[in-house]
Amino acid sequence: MERVSRIENFIPKNDARLLEKAEAAKPVLKERTVLPQQGNVPCSLGAGESATYDFGTHWVGYLTVKLGYSGSHPDAPAYFTVQFAERLSEFEENPAAYRGWISKGWIQTETLHADRLPCVVSLPRRYAFRYVRLTVLDVSRKYRVVPEGIECRAVSAADCAFVPALGSGDEMLDRIDAIAVKTLAECMQDVFEDGPKRDRRLWLGDFRLQALANYATFRNLALVRRCLYLFAGTRFPDDRIAACLFTDGEAVADDTWFSDYALMYPVALAEYCQRSGDKEALSDLYEIAQKQIDLTLSMTGADGIVNEEFVEATFIDWCAGLDKAACAQGVLLYALPYGIQLAKMCGDETRAARYREALERGRTAAKARFFDGRHCVSNGQISPASAIWMTLGGVLTEAEAREALLGVLSRPTAYPMVSPYLHHYLLEALLKANDPKAAKEHLLAYWGSMAACGADTFFEVWNPLDPDASPYGGKIVNSFCHAWSCTPSYFLRNRLL
Amino acid sequence: MERVSRIENFIPKNDARLLEKAEAAKPVLKERTVLPQQGNVPCSLGAGESATYDFGTHWVGYLTVKLGYSGSHPDAPAYFTVQFAERLSEFEENPAAYRGWISKGWIQTETLHADRLPCVVSLPRRYAFRYVRLTVLDVSRKYRVVPEGIECRAVSAADCAFVPALGSGDEMLDRIDAIAVKTLAECMQDVFEDGPKRDRRLWLGDFRLQALANYATFRNLALVRRCLYLFAGTRFPDDRIAACLFTDGEAVADDTWFSDYALMYPVALAEYCQRSGDKEALSDLYEIAQKQIDLTLSMTGADGIVNEEFVEATFIDWCAGLDKAACAQGVLLYALPYGIQLAKMCGDETRAARYREALERGRTAAKARFFDGRHCVSNGQISPASAIWMTLGGVLTEAEAREALLGVLSRPTAYPMVSPYLHHYLLEALLKANDPKAAKEHLLAYWGSMAACGADTFFEVWNPLDPDASPYGGKIVNSFCHAWSCTPSYFLRNRLL
Repeated sequence: MERVSRIENFIPKNDARLLEKAEAAKPVLKERTVLPQQGNVPCSLGAGESATYDFGTHWVGYLTVKLGYSGSHPDAPAYFTVQFAERLSEFEENPAAYRGWISKGWIQTETLHADRLPCVVSLPRRYAFRYVRLTVLDVSRKYRVVPEGIECRAVSAADCAFVPALGSGDEMLDRIDAIAVKTLAECMQDVFEDGPKRDRRLWLGDFRLQALANYATFRNLALVRRCLYLFAGTRFPDDRIAACLFTDGEAVADDTWFSDYALMYPVALAEYCQRSGDKEALSDLYEIAQKQIDLTLSMTGADGIVNEEFVEATFIDWCAGLDKAACAQGVLLYALPYGIQLAKMCGDETRAARYREALERGRTAAKARFFDGRHCVSNGQISPASAIWMTLGGVLTEAEAREALLGVLSRPTAYPMVSPYLHHYLLEALLKANDPKAAKEHLLAYWGSMAACGADTFFEVWNPLDPDASPYGGKIVNSFCHAWSCTPSYFLRNRLL
Repeated sequence: MERVSRIENFIPKNDARLLEKAEAAKPVLKERTVLPQQGNVPCSLGAGESATYDFGTHWVGYLTVKLGYSGSHPDAPAYFTVQFAERLSEFEENPAAYRGWISKGWIQTETLHADRLPCVVSLPRRYAFRYVRLTVLDVSRKYRVVPEGIECRAVSAADCAFVPALGSGDEMLDRIDAIAVKTLAECMQDVFEDGPKRDRRLWLGDFRLQALANYATFRNLALVRRCLYLFAGTRFPDDRIAACLFTDGEAVADDTWFSDYALMYPVALAEYCQRSGDKEALSDLYEIAQKQIDLTLSMTGADGIVNEEFVEATFIDWCAGLDKAACAQGVLLYALPYGIQLAKMCGDETRAARYREALERGRTAAKARFFDGRHCVSNGQISPASAIWMTLGGVLTEAEAREALLGVLSRPTAYPMVSPYLHHYLLEALLKANDPKAAKEHLLAYWGSMAACGADTFFEVWNPLDPDASPYGGKIVNSFCHAWSCTPSYFLRNRLL
């Protein structure tokens, strides 16, 4: 995920005590060796020729290729590329033609020389892929390159074999669940990564969704604990929690703050402590979590509405032109009950009372400002996002919420939902509006259409009406295994069935 | 050097006893750390931007680059190339546009990703270069790449510091000598390589010239011994010695035989034994060396002239359309005295007598066949190459040789000398014709024109009238530090001054 908010003159301040606890919870990755489906059938490749290998499903790991030759002893280096694709269609795109705004460095292509053959080439970088294509760029006239073996050392903190199948009796639901479980597993590495192809980082918004799906599947509490400590240990000098962390090497906060993501920290902490009973984490992280809410309250006017600065710092979704005022308000109202829950766990009655009051005032103000009796309206704009967050903020009654949600979903909108992240919150909202049938239908329509397109894992971006959409100016840099798409398992295992 | 002769159904047969002795003589390479001339001035590079470093002169070695960044913490891999050039003009050529017939794999370019910054990138392959260019192909919007340090771990079996300057009093001669010494040093690695950029192999014809220059400069007898044992230890089942060996890994003979190169084996052995007094090598290698001559004699007709099969297997030079009959004959007659010398060293009078007789008969036949009283004529064709090899074969008197050589050099010819290899033998021939003045003039004209063009080392290919010539369809794959150009030091130190 690439977004624009950026803190000026950002000076990170790491909290060694918290980061030590994060380090102690670092997982030992499970490794397995995976071979391509068709086996290692040797072929021989001359200049310009390729071999494509299908590893059966999505893997995250390290590739080793054994290369031999046919003909005379090699008298020039073999010059070749190894390309990786999560979906076969990526090979149809020309990497050189990518002109989008994020780095071409994300395109999973390596250009290599083998000075001596036979040789074993172990690529040091980690890749996310199902398909591998080996292309000989050039070779001498006297020999050809023979790929004698190719294998992947796949890594993950999770093992899908330990998660029982959903067994819903519905083949498509079972399939959606299995894809979601695989998506989550692939993103569970040293931390909960957003996407193993790109950005390979710990994003707070994605993390909260991963943690939810993880509770319903792998139940890896240590990895959640680790990430909570990482976020807290890298908070800004004013205690704000960064939207994302770099964790390859020493943990470092990105100089990016999303106000709605920061509010997901107390949400995630409350959910974690409820499930784990981890009193140490609660004690260590409580104040930091509540600071995210306090900061938001300090950015709320006397009218009970979050101010413009807060609204502008939200992510919410990628939808261009979306008015986010109602959403931002909804996210605060969504987070406050988790803050109250945390306060109760810590016996902090003063804060609980303060938050209860803020919640009451905020809801009343939101209803007056953003609801016209039928629609959620944010500065004159009606969008699914506004209806979702007004619902999740508890601003509407069940009946109002249902009408607002189904109303906005049933008609064309200039402000459609773009990211699976928002699609997740739509399902939450539909359940809160007590419409599990609509939630299940949407799950089948949205995630089911990815499954129908042959997805091995769920994508970062998906619009069934525009399957080639990319927020980056080229699908070749899209991530096709992305954490924020993994929550069908959460819904199917905990709430829908 | 890439040539075409190729043995069908070639089965290499290594001689372990000889190869063990070659291994024992393997040099420990001298290493030194070299920094670019302008120092490591940090700059910062965005997408599409480059920094070029000048290491002052030619080096063979391994590059390490330390990369940092400016701006935000890197949020995407840095994607960059490192290009190496022996001459700055190589950077003007577009590697993607090379369409010649040898492998693009020889172009010294690496394409890399840095997933984490700062980082130290140590490139595992060896390069031959004076210039290095670092180009950032892409980077994110949030940071720039800062090259914080770049250095080369240069390697060679030789150290120029131990060779005293020529001190001829003539600045240009001193400069030519210094360039030749450097050329030789750069090609002295685990073996005498033809060129450290390309092919990085042990070629027999080049080796004999390197050994000559080495006796006049570094006097590294062990490396000559090693190469003599390598050639003998990888001879073909019928005892022929290959034109070149692959020595990166287990020594392997290329499936290429050049009849004129094979005859340089007894030449090189005799020269080595004379200088070293190495009786063990003489004893081990004598029969193998003489087999090269015996084989040639078996390919000689009753008329005393080498047959067509032998002629077709010669290299001589790259000149298209050159008639090589006179040259091939000349090479045999050039080698025979060395065979006689070897036989004398071993007390093998029978063989010495046989070779003396063959020499006499071959010279007489050659004069009758290839000399018209003024010109050397090979099947109707007059060329410098024919005059050179007739002279070196001792077919002509000094006066005849001088007239033939100067005659053919003074007029335009359709069959010019192309490779520095042949230019070496022209100097030898002019000295044999007792015209050191003409030899010195040619040395100044030919090698001096490379020096005047700013050569740090002497080139694989050089035509002063066509500086961009390439036998490979593109100068970007030419080698600009090539062993067979290094003999000015031999002439300047031993024979001309």
